[in-house]
Amino acid sequence: MPQGFAMSVESKLAQLGLKLPPAPGPAGQYLPWVRAGNLLFLSGQLPMEAGVPRYVGRVGAELTEEQGYAAARLAALNVLAQLRAALGSFDRLERLVRVEGHVASAPGWYGTPGVLDGASALFLGVLGKRGSHTRASFNSTHLPWNVAVELVVTAAVKPD
Amino acid sequence: MPQGFAMSVESKLAQLGLKLPPAPGPAGQYLPWVRAGNLLFLSGQLPMEAGVPRYVGRVGAELTEEQGYAAARLAALNVLAQLRAALGSFDRLERLVRVEGHVASAPGWYGTPGVLDGASALFLGVLGKRGSHTRASFNSTHLPWNVAVELVVTAAVKPD
Amino acid sequence: MPQGFAMSVESKLAQLGLKLPPAPGPAGQYLPWVRAGNLLFLSGQLPMEAGVPRYVGRVGAELTEEQGYAAARLAALNVLAQLRAALGSFDRLERLVRVEGHVASAPGWYGTPGVLDGASALFLGVLGKRGSHTRASFNSTHLPWNVAVELVVTAAVKPD
Repeated sequence: MPQGFAMSVESKLAQLGLKLPPAPGPAGQYLPWVRAGNLLFLSGQLPMEAGVPRYVGRVGAELTEEQGYAAARLAALNVLAQLRAALGSFDRLERLVRVEGHVASAPGWYGTPGVLDGASALFLGVLGKRGSHTRASFNSTHLPWNVAVELVVTAAVKPD
Repeated sequence: MPQGFAMSVESKLAQLGLKLPPAPGPAGQYLPWVRAGNLLFLSGQLPMEAGVPRYVGRVGAELTEEQGYAAARLAALNVLAQLRAALGSFDRLERLVRVEGHVASAPGWYGTPGVLDGASALFLGVLGKRGSHTRASFNSTHLPWNVAVELVVTAAVKPD
Repeated sequence: MPQGFAMSVESKLAQLGLKLPPAPGPAGQYLPWVRAGNLLFLSGQLPMEAGVPRYVGRVGAELTEEQGYAAARLAALNVLAQLRAALGSFDRLERLVRVEGHVASAPGWYGTPGVLDGASALFLGVLGKRGSHTRASFNSTHLPWNVAVELVVTAAVKPD
């Protein structure tokens, strides 16, 4: 039974009508996470749901900004699932450190930061101050499986 | 009053006719920097001046390589402003570690490394050996607010 | 004469018909690697051979997926060369940590993870468990010198 901070994370997810999915498996010959010292490196996370890519296409073309925001939020939910799987419990999370967000987007569409707030707001809403992070925003013409968003996250782990 | 290394940084900037601007604020729900152990992670920095994007467009199309070089230099000046804001003084900077540079560029234009030397040369000129860094160069079709360059920088901080 | 783990790395390379090339020099005003604490940051590595870009073009257009896979493998060989140059011996390598792979690709081609397995499989085949890593996959319209693949690698070093 999770306690303290970890319990509050689950409870905040529930208040948002969300539930941590199983952590998505890798799409090739790599690991979902690696810890080095007190840093935890995650593999790129996509807006996958039950193994299927959702939010396929480019923001500003096949997808609206609202759909892009939802794609970022779903990818962030998978980040949370990976963190719990990597750490066993959110209690061991010191904080998020960096979120690099890549948004598949149409030519002439530049609103990446607004779309990536879909991820940032979820991290802050669920993890509180431990969810705050640095961020870098990029536009891509396309991403693996034609998904709309990819997040590359680095976190810090509490000393053992 | 800054002393020693920090004073030499300000003095070298002045010799180049440059002055550290206020560190640009974030463009969304994130922080400008996060420290984890002795590493300092900065959010993506753009060629902003007084809150306004300069050097808008793609190198090899709307912008020349010289303008791209100047855009990289301006983004690097904002990196320096963030470093000083994060650390209080450059005296606490151990060194730069990694600079990832994304250059918005026209199809068929491949000169990214030369453009990013605009950032690298400023870091070396102002920070000396502490400004040396690893680098990775990428071409983008476009970047947030249609700016020409984005820099993602990781630095090391002196042990307290 | 390398011993133990380092000797097994050379031997596995030889079994694959591969030999570590000299570590490629930087393409601008930056360093090939920087160590910060127990992390080793490498500059972006490309499919260069004897200073010349090989595998030029986009996967799904000028290049096949097989050529993309070979490009990723060649870039990974250069990563190994940089690691040995940085550490003196693979014995000092704790493990790989993160591999970010950018693949120049045609519109509508989304098979980046399969192409990047060309790098991941080489790391695992030669370094064994120390070669396992997290990964993020990106599509680019083009990369420096029009090469097909760029790898940005972070590794962990054994404590001195």
